[in-house]
Amino acid sequence: MKYSKLFPKTLKQVPTGVESINHQLLVRAGFIHQEMAGVYTYLPLGWKVIEKISNIVREEMNKIGGQEMLMPVLHPGENWKKTGRFQNFDVLFKLKGAGDKDLVLGPTHEEIIYPLLAEYIKSYKDLPLYLYQIQTKFRNEPRAKAGVLRTREFIMKDLYSFHVNDEDRNEYYKLAREAYIKILRRLEITALVTKASGGTFSDLSEEFQVITPSGEDTIFVCEDCQMAINKEIAQEKCPECGGKLKEEKAIEVGNIFPLKPAYAEAFDLSFVSETGKKKLVSAGCYGLGVSRVMGAIVEVFHDDKGIIWPESVAPFKVHIVGLDGEGDKVYKLLLAEGVEVLFDDRVDVSAGVKFADADLIGVPYRVVVSKKTKDQLEVKKRNEKETKFVTLEELLEVINPI
Amino acid sequence: MKYSKLFPKTLKQVPTGVESINHQLLVRAGFIHQEMAGVYTYLPLGWKVIEKISNIVREEMNKIGGQEMLMPVLHPGENWKKTGRFQNFDVLFKLKGAGDKDLVLGPTHEEIIYPLLAEYIKSYKDLPLYLYQIQTKFRNEPRAKAGVLRTREFIMKDLYSFHVNDEDRNEYYKLAREAYIKILRRLEITALVTKASGGTFSDLSEEFQVITPSGEDTIFVCEDCQMAINKEIAQEKCPECGGKLKEEKAIEVGNIFPLKPAYAEAFDLSFVSETGKKKLVSAGCYGLGVSRVMGAIVEVFHDDKGIIWPESVAPFKVHIVGLDGEGDKVYKLLLAEGVEVLFDDRVDVSAGVKFADADLIGVPYRVVVSKKTKDQLEVKKRNEKETKFVTLEELLEVINPI
Repeated sequence: MKYSKLFPKTLKQVPTGVESINHQLLVRAGFIHQEMAGVYTYLPLGWKVIEKISNIVREEMNKIGGQEMLMPVLHPGENWKKTGRFQNFDVLFKLKGAGDKDLVLGPTHEEIIYPLLAEYIKSYKDLPLYLYQIQTKFRNEPRAKAGVLRTREFIMKDLYSFHVNDEDRNEYYKLAREAYIKILRRLEITALVTKASGGTFSDLSEEFQVITPSGEDTIFVCEDCQMAINKEIAQEKCPECGGKLKEEKAIEVGNIFPLKPAYAEAFDLSFVSETGKKKLVSAGCYGLGVSRVMGAIVEVFHDDKGIIWPESVAPFKVHIVGLDGEGDKVYKLLLAEGVEVLFDDRVDVSAGVKFADADLIGVPYRVVVSKKTKDQLEVKKRNEKETKFVTLEELLEVINPI
Repeated sequence: MKYSKLFPKTLKQVPTGVESINHQLLVRAGFIHQEMAGVYTYLPLGWKVIEKISNIVREEMNKIGGQEMLMPVLHPGENWKKTGRFQNFDVLFKLKGAGDKDLVLGPTHEEIIYPLLAEYIKSYKDLPLYLYQIQTKFRNEPRAKAGVLRTREFIMKDLYSFHVNDEDRNEYYKLAREAYIKILRRLEITALVTKASGGTFSDLSEEFQVITPSGEDTIFVCEDCQMAINKEIAQEKCPECGGKLKEEKAIEVGNIFPLKPAYAEAFDLSFVSETGKKKLVSAGCYGLGVSRVMGAIVEVFHDDKGIIWPESVAPFKVHIVGLDGEGDKVYKLLLAEGVEVLFDDRVDVSAGVKFADADLIGVPYRVVVSKKTKDQLEVKKRNEKETKFVTLEELLEVINPI
């Protein structure tokens, strides 16, 4: 992509009233645009990041047998009345449809997937099932804040697993937990598996927390064994080893937990067992905030000049800074090699502006092409200080190390 | 994918109260599930089709310079008040957000993209721009009907182009028109480019109409030159050649049209021209109903046994019917060749049920593997009657003809 064609260009000014780092940097670098409090457009650069995160999540969900589908945004209000959450879910967006029917904008999809499955599940032979979606969710947050960390409209992956009994569910829970650890490793962010409320009497119910000063959650981490516990259930000492707990701020990017039997009861999600008995389906829920992950990555990976994207989710791999009208040849050669390249081909801005924009946008490899250095390309990693001069052939080795 | 694991299995019964063919077949074959009138879940098979349609659309949009992004579902009501559409758009979903703010669920995105661009576009150098999204849209239809053809929640691609003047917009309009023709060719559906209201005084404003008896639109097609005109603007004779017009029922799968200057005025979307004058931006809009295309394809391609998917959007390319416990070897070999395969590995259903399910689901190639025929595989195209026996090597040639 030529930067001259990319929409939009970077902004010099920090937007007014914007406090959090992810919000400032994502807006200034042209990844997102705020439409109102807690509601954003993902601009072309931001959408590329969201798609890369989604694809990593998708691959790992498929590996543990997940089948992707898409449930709707609009939910019948009656389903939410059945579970009691039409009144009790405090940030529920409600509206009226044709015929004065109560509707809800889905913040989560138990109220859709349970009655849906109840139409298909008859026998133990129909189980287990692992179904997921990557869908836009809604919460009528009174105080949306912190950029894409706490929004009214956000993108989430939610996986639901259904089983003949709790033992089978608990085994799958471990698989899902491993998949989450793999996803976070591929996203290159360190998240602590944190025991959460509901998890006091079992190993189930855990959050994936990214430690960063801007986090809204408070967790306690054992200084000895590194076990992490959510503040809600933390005590004075580590329940595992008795070690001292240290308070940390963190962003919750995922949570996994067993679903209460109340949902299966509300929608009569049951099956006939091998011995001919009617039994309730056992289920688990595994959520991951796709758009929130983008914000968390920026909170963790940035410096005073801009974002430092991990390679796995960067919108491009290489950012060519073309000086003196140079760069087109290198751009075309990298494209031919299948490398994702952003080429700053602008002729009406200074080298200084181009370098500042490259640092702000945060693509992993910056390559400077100029008349001065002739066939030597100056390459620098965004997260390193050192620059080196390489030939085009060497460049390919640098950006694709074996 | 093994059919034994796929969610859900086919249904024997036509759901009650379901009249349209696409609705009947997509529900029975397990592609969609209705949550309420006009609101559907895309089940794993249906989601695969939606993704294939989306990817074809995406590729052709990228080829004409389109940059993909994602605008929100929630719109500020004030934007819709600025264009007068908060009151005048008759199927608008309205709701209240925190602080009693008026919100709208987007049925189209002019009210977002115009003010968004107004913040970035300053000079003629910032134009032209081609931005698109594939997003869920909402219409509070009083009578949702005809399966995924007329829904309250649907998936659309909308491209918006922005230009320094109408001439440049009109040139791009032609490019977009060509892209639509390519998309529809790749989707293997025949759509007539149909002059629509607003297009009487120019060649602009056209609909892409798929002729089928179940269509809700009425168009007139010239028996001589095949020119098509929407009923709203049709006269007695063909305006091109004077030929006789024939009335047809059709489904509108896309429409392309210039946007009125009123939008640019409402949001002051203007730029400074080369001669230093302030001018309004000229724009076009290019819509394509992704979920509606799925319904239109089923309306056109089916027989009394089920759906007949075109290869480009079929959820799988090959459907292996395994009899006598056979099929696993062929399944694994096809997977290793990168072929998308659905393998009916069920041991507890009859051959007859498996054949009926294969016809209902409508995958392009059916391959029967049984003990009886040994190394010979029986292959049949879903849209042909003839079966032939081939070796595994020959099968690869049959399904991947050069």
